[in-house]
Amino acid sequence: MPLSVSHRCQNIAPSLTLAIDARAKEMAASGLNVIGFGAGEPDFPTPPHICDAAAEALDRGMTRYTPVAGTMELRQAICAKLERDQNLTYAPQDIIVSNGAKHSLYTVFQTILDPGDEVLIPTPCWVSYPEMVRMAGGVPVFIPTDEANDFIPSNRDIASHVTRRTKAIIITSPSNPNGSVWSREQLQFVAGLAVTHPFYVVSDEIYEKLLYDGRKHLSIAQLGEQIKSQTFIINGLSKAYAMTGWRIGYCAGPRHEISAMVAFQSQATSNANAIAQHAAAVALNSDQSCVDEMVAQFENRRNEMVSHINRIPGLSCLKPAGAFYVMMNIRAVLGKSYNGRVIETSMDFAELLLAEKQVAVVPGIAFEAEGFCRLSYATSMEKIHEGLDRIEDFVSSLC
Amino acid sequence: MPLSVSHRCQNIAPSLTLAIDARAKEMAASGLNVIGFGAGEPDFPTPPHICDAAAEALDRGMTRYTPVAGTMELRQAICAKLERDQNLTYAPQDIIVSNGAKHSLYTVFQTILDPGDEVLIPTPCWVSYPEMVRMAGGVPVFIPTDEANDFIPSNRDIASHVTRRTKAIIITSPSNPNGSVWSREQLQFVAGLAVTHPFYVVSDEIYEKLLYDGRKHLSIAQLGEQIKSQTFIINGLSKAYAMTGWRIGYCAGPRHEISAMVAFQSQATSNANAIAQHAAAVALNSDQSCVDEMVAQFENRRNEMVSHINRIPGLSCLKPAGAFYVMMNIRAVLGKSYNGRVIETSMDFAELLLAEKQVAVVPGIAFEAEGFCRLSYATSMEKIHEGLDRIEDFVSSLC
Repeated sequence: MPLSVSHRCQNIAPSLTLAIDARAKEMAASGLNVIGFGAGEPDFPTPPHICDAAAEALDRGMTRYTPVAGTMELRQAICAKLERDQNLTYAPQDIIVSNGAKHSLYTVFQTILDPGDEVLIPTPCWVSYPEMVRMAGGVPVFIPTDEANDFIPSNRDIASHVTRRTKAIIITSPSNPNGSVWSREQLQFVAGLAVTHPFYVVSDEIYEKLLYDGRKHLSIAQLGEQIKSQTFIINGLSKAYAMTGWRIGYCAGPRHEISAMVAFQSQATSNANAIAQHAAAVALNSDQSCVDEMVAQFENRRNEMVSHINRIPGLSCLKPAGAFYVMMNIRAVLGKSYNGRVIETSMDFAELLLAEKQVAVVPGIAFEAEGFCRLSYATSMEKIHEGLDRIEDFVSSLC
Repeated sequence: MPLSVSHRCQNIAPSLTLAIDARAKEMAASGLNVIGFGAGEPDFPTPPHICDAAAEALDRGMTRYTPVAGTMELRQAICAKLERDQNLTYAPQDIIVSNGAKHSLYTVFQTILDPGDEVLIPTPCWVSYPEMVRMAGGVPVFIPTDEANDFIPSNRDIASHVTRRTKAIIITSPSNPNGSVWSREQLQFVAGLAVTHPFYVVSDEIYEKLLYDGRKHLSIAQLGEQIKSQTFIINGLSKAYAMTGWRIGYCAGPRHEISAMVAFQSQATSNANAIAQHAAAVALNSDQSCVDEMVAQFENRRNEMVSHINRIPGLSCLKPAGAFYVMMNIRAVLGKSYNGRVIETSMDFAELLLAEKQVAVVPGIAFEAEGFCRLSYATSMEKIHEGLDRIEDFVSSLC
């Protein structure tokens, strides 16, 4: 038979966010002054006490294989965190630690999906969800939302997309790419539907700590024992503790399914980095003021970015309740031209903006959200000002 | 539809090696003096200069996302290693860094296998190969070997297992679990077959550095440009540098397939731990005397273990050329009894030995090799003596 890659891999959509990011980095490397609003990672360094914990792990020789599901120390720290923050009781056997939250999500879908199983995904959505569902043989079923509903689907829209094949729904609150936060009532409706049908809930809570205006996080698993027993809580250290490169994510869920995930991970990757696991346990168990400080800075940046965008004629955005992204509405400028080149799509807008003004944004099409671009405010206030000035300049010269 | 795990996961065989290891650890935790010959990891600590490199990475703030395929620094170090050790020329675009060599293997099979594709696996084989092939929808086709042929299949046996659906063969040299090393002529036969058919070669070279009696490693990719273009070299830092817990593995292979692997990994897990990547680059680029020292110790232990086993009436083993495992032939004691309990299988032998003498070995059935048990000599000389004394005691009391 011919040498060729699998159909599974031929069908993986290349990541648009990575493509834009790669081009921006090339331009910066060639000496251009690029402003990057594409990044999905905090611009802060990992707090010193967490780095110290890693150094301590090295000194203590914590360089061996750990249990596949993660060290007892880290799984206990995760249980304590869930109890403290969400009032949710899990045992270490209900937890799996993975090489980042993305890896936990991947393993969940491999563990619960058979070919043809459907997963409900409200859009705009994170780029990897539909690919991960497809990689497990599943079918992503998109539930489109719009700005008018704060990018959260109506109860009716959710219910109308449920079929006999629905195996799970993904809830991302706070959301990437739009920063929306689901209310208790909205989560209660999903929980009711999931329990009745039944289907699983994959609750991606990676942005949990990045909430503004005094909001407090609510996990759908907090709405009762039955829905908790059908929910996979996905979380990790990357966003809250500026630990993106450390690759520590986790999933808390029903014990039988978690043990199937552990069996899967035991044959696919084994444990996450042992040194990072100790650092992560220390991060979760320590004083959390480093998180509060980062959140305060993100909130200031959000306020600045949102008010600046809404001052630019032709652009607008909602004020997101969480995460570190703004969905900038560019519908009013679609159809206009820059130096004779017509901007038909969010991709055109992002490409021209990068080429002409050296500002990197992610086109909404990457998130199934044409008519928008995603801007990250995980960058300095100076760069936010400079980048938005350039965007204003760019938009004002469209005709 | 009912809430249940996928068929994919229902069919994952639980790892027998992990099960034995878990029971041994429980017994040790309860205060028993357990001798562990089950471990697949060096008992040495990670060399200090590698730990220092990790500390330096922390100081330099190397805590962010890296490229999915790995940092340029590490991929260049891997290219330099392949050039230096194997005289093989690869560019960084031909390399992917993963969360351990197991993860590289998993991604290779996801990238090359469609449902029904067959993968030739000489047995005894590492426990994860057949599971990984099945997890990608493939069919493991075992090629049984025996001690009489040093656990390497004859050319005729290999050729007779090739079918229209053969997509790849796995070559593990030096081998886990039997320590065998394939000769140039044996590799040449496989290369010829693979090129003619054609099919891919997955060449697991993780034990490459652990070779004894002055042997030098030969990769099948060294046998010509055509076979190189069909070969995935799998390697990692775990065994040669005592870095099991760091989780850095890599694959070098044909560029188109590697880029498909990168796309897959970008949606499944992203990059391996950033700090460990820097430490791995330093490990590969530094003076290699730490490896030589460990290998010298492993060679002494091998000699001791092999001569001791062969002195025990009823047991025997070959002298393996590489890795750190011995396949102990227990066929002569099968059918005998210990306190009235008949030992029918390698599993019975391993369970009774652990329960009665607190010595952990892995039953051959875990590697598709009934009639054997695998003993690792990645443990101290004292423990080797003590453990084999207990085994001798155990076997002498069988009747």
